[in-house]
Amino acid sequence: MDYKSRQQRLRASLQNTRLDALLVTHLPNIRYLCGFTGSSAVLVVTKDQSVFFSDGRYIAQAKDEVENSRIVIGSKAPMLSAAEWLIANRRGLAGQDLSKGQRLSIGIEGEHLTVSARARLSKTLGASFRLKASPPLIEQARMVKEPEETRLIRAAVQMGASLFDRVVKTIRPGVSESEVAAALEFAARNAGAEQMSFPTIIASGKRSALPHGVASQAKIPAKGFVVCDFGVILAGYCSDMTRTVHVGKPTAEARRVYESVRLAQQAAVDVVKPGRSVAEVDNAARKLLKEDGLGRYFSHSTGHGVGLEIHESPRIASGQADLLKPGMVITVEPGVYIPGKFGVRIEDMVLVTKTGCEVLTPISKELITL
Amino acid sequence: MDYKSRQQRLRASLQNTRLDALLVTHLPNIRYLCGFTGSSAVLVVTKDQSVFFSDGRYIAQAKDEVENSRIVIGSKAPMLSAAEWLIANRRGLAGQDLSKGQRLSIGIEGEHLTVSARARLSKTLGASFRLKASPPLIEQARMVKEPEETRLIRAAVQMGASLFDRVVKTIRPGVSESEVAAALEFAARNAGAEQMSFPTIIASGKRSALPHGVASQAKIPAKGFVVCDFGVILAGYCSDMTRTVHVGKPTAEARRVYESVRLAQQAAVDVVKPGRSVAEVDNAARKLLKEDGLGRYFSHSTGHGVGLEIHESPRIASGQADLLKPGMVITVEPGVYIPGKFGVRIEDMVLVTKTGCEVLTPISKELITL
Repeated sequence: MDYKSRQQRLRASLQNTRLDALLVTHLPNIRYLCGFTGSSAVLVVTKDQSVFFSDGRYIAQAKDEVENSRIVIGSKAPMLSAAEWLIANRRGLAGQDLSKGQRLSIGIEGEHLTVSARARLSKTLGASFRLKASPPLIEQARMVKEPEETRLIRAAVQMGASLFDRVVKTIRPGVSESEVAAALEFAARNAGAEQMSFPTIIASGKRSALPHGVASQAKIPAKGFVVCDFGVILAGYCSDMTRTVHVGKPTAEARRVYESVRLAQQAAVDVVKPGRSVAEVDNAARKLLKEDGLGRYFSHSTGHGVGLEIHESPRIASGQADLLKPGMVITVEPGVYIPGKFGVRIEDMVLVTKTGCEVLTPISKELITL
Repeated sequence: MDYKSRQQRLRASLQNTRLDALLVTHLPNIRYLCGFTGSSAVLVVTKDQSVFFSDGRYIAQAKDEVENSRIVIGSKAPMLSAAEWLIANRRGLAGQDLSKGQRLSIGIEGEHLTVSARARLSKTLGASFRLKASPPLIEQARMVKEPEETRLIRAAVQMGASLFDRVVKTIRPGVSESEVAAALEFAARNAGAEQMSFPTIIASGKRSALPHGVASQAKIPAKGFVVCDFGVILAGYCSDMTRTVHVGKPTAEARRVYESVRLAQQAAVDVVKPGRSVAEVDNAARKLLKEDGLGRYFSHSTGHGVGLEIHESPRIASGQADLLKPGMVITVEPGVYIPGKFGVRIEDMVLVTKTGCEVLTPISKELITL
């Protein structure tokens, strides 16, 4: 990855703020900027340098992974090391124009830093620093994937999709949802996945009406839908897909609902192109389901960005103003959940291209009955 | 679980604060207080009631799980629903003594709520409310496990330990760390685990010197240590154990270091009893490793509480003041990591009893060579 360019772009966007430095604490953002994959770090980005702070557990790993940043391994928590470094380097940060009593503005990630961590930081830094919530500059940059990232996402999506066959082969009446997840996750590990990108959802029968029905000890019934929503992490990038299969012969109602969701999902995909708003994508799916009398059973938003995190910007939801741009990777995943009866969700990962979009998930969306 | 008693105890401890209500946003704390296991919720605890807020995805699940609380399913985000409820119920919250212009104090969880979420909440609530960081009342309560919780933790630890045999049988030169993790996680799922309690660490050869060496594509070498650190979640409760095995004949140095870590771990366990401080436990392990000239290679703290979360209070570290109490469940896990060479860690889960402690992890700590 070209960490140097990413940091340069961040520096350029920092100039439009009045921040003297940005304190990056969200780990996926740190990874994006310098390559570190561990669980304890802070990255300080100033006008002319990046300084990476971690603790004794990560000496070797930081040396190995971190690029384009000075590495400081402290004996204290990384946040404290970073604060002490800021205090010691106050003069250099401000440049020549540090007048007496002038406070330095340090940007924090308001969507990630906790209230208590902010209070401790503020106390350590003292009166000559001012903490200001920064705009989500890194999240905004991460929305548009670089070609190298798209390549890695494609690989993760391909691997995820290749596992669906294993899911289909394992599902049968009497097998527990957990056993299906076990077979899936075993295949994922053996295919080289780093881990699953979120707790696997295998929700069968009435449980399919739970939008977040993680695999349980429940046995798959003789007849009914099974919602299968899963993903892998490969080289740090997440995949995410959902298919809903039917065990036994579906009723006319089940077929009708499945078909509504399938068409709604397709309608939303059809809207994805540069310049469209994410709200339009959401609306396309919602409109069709409403027309079929199923609107009130579609109880979540239509999708989300995917990359280093399973949920990242943009949110594909009504009321959101983001416009689609080439290089964005989003999910399109409408669903219908009829309490006490059943649920259906269909989800693809979709890449926004220069002229429209490309569905990355290479699996048919026709109803599979087992 | 006796959610009613937990809420009553929280209410009693709230009386020592000047808070009119507590806004609980940390999901494990919400689960602890009312039983909800989903991913989107807020619980408002007032002097005389608890009100649970979630969104449309969780209608059925909330009804099924949430106890001793009024359930409100809003069309907006739970935090916004909760804020609107507070505004609408301002008078009732304050009791009879709401004088004109008086502001209500709402406690927030400062260690969990983000700076931005707090700012949005403050704006929504307006000038007649004041947000105040609450002491960690729920975390403090959760440190001491109830008998029912101890029973569930024992079951999780037993299941985790039962999987170690599968790990030992899979480890051999040429097999990848991922394949070992795959076999382990497959066995865990089939045994009924809900999920792993954290990304499985299988760190072999030189990678064993990485304290957080999650299972990679690296092949297990013909000779060297393999650190195996893993846990399962069962009925919501986490297990956590580490054993380090050796492939091939260990060198004299490897044997010596293993024995140092084993004795340091035992020394720390020997200190665990009610009234001792967590710092003493940390110090017991650290002292022995220092005496063996390995102190600088022990680069993390000695342990942490375990329960609904894999890492919870107390931290077993120097400088921490918590005193051990009967019912606490902690890990004791010193390690030695010699960069570029190898690492060893040994970890048990330990229950503090009335008179001392009980090691819950039923697996030998003698060096296993494969």
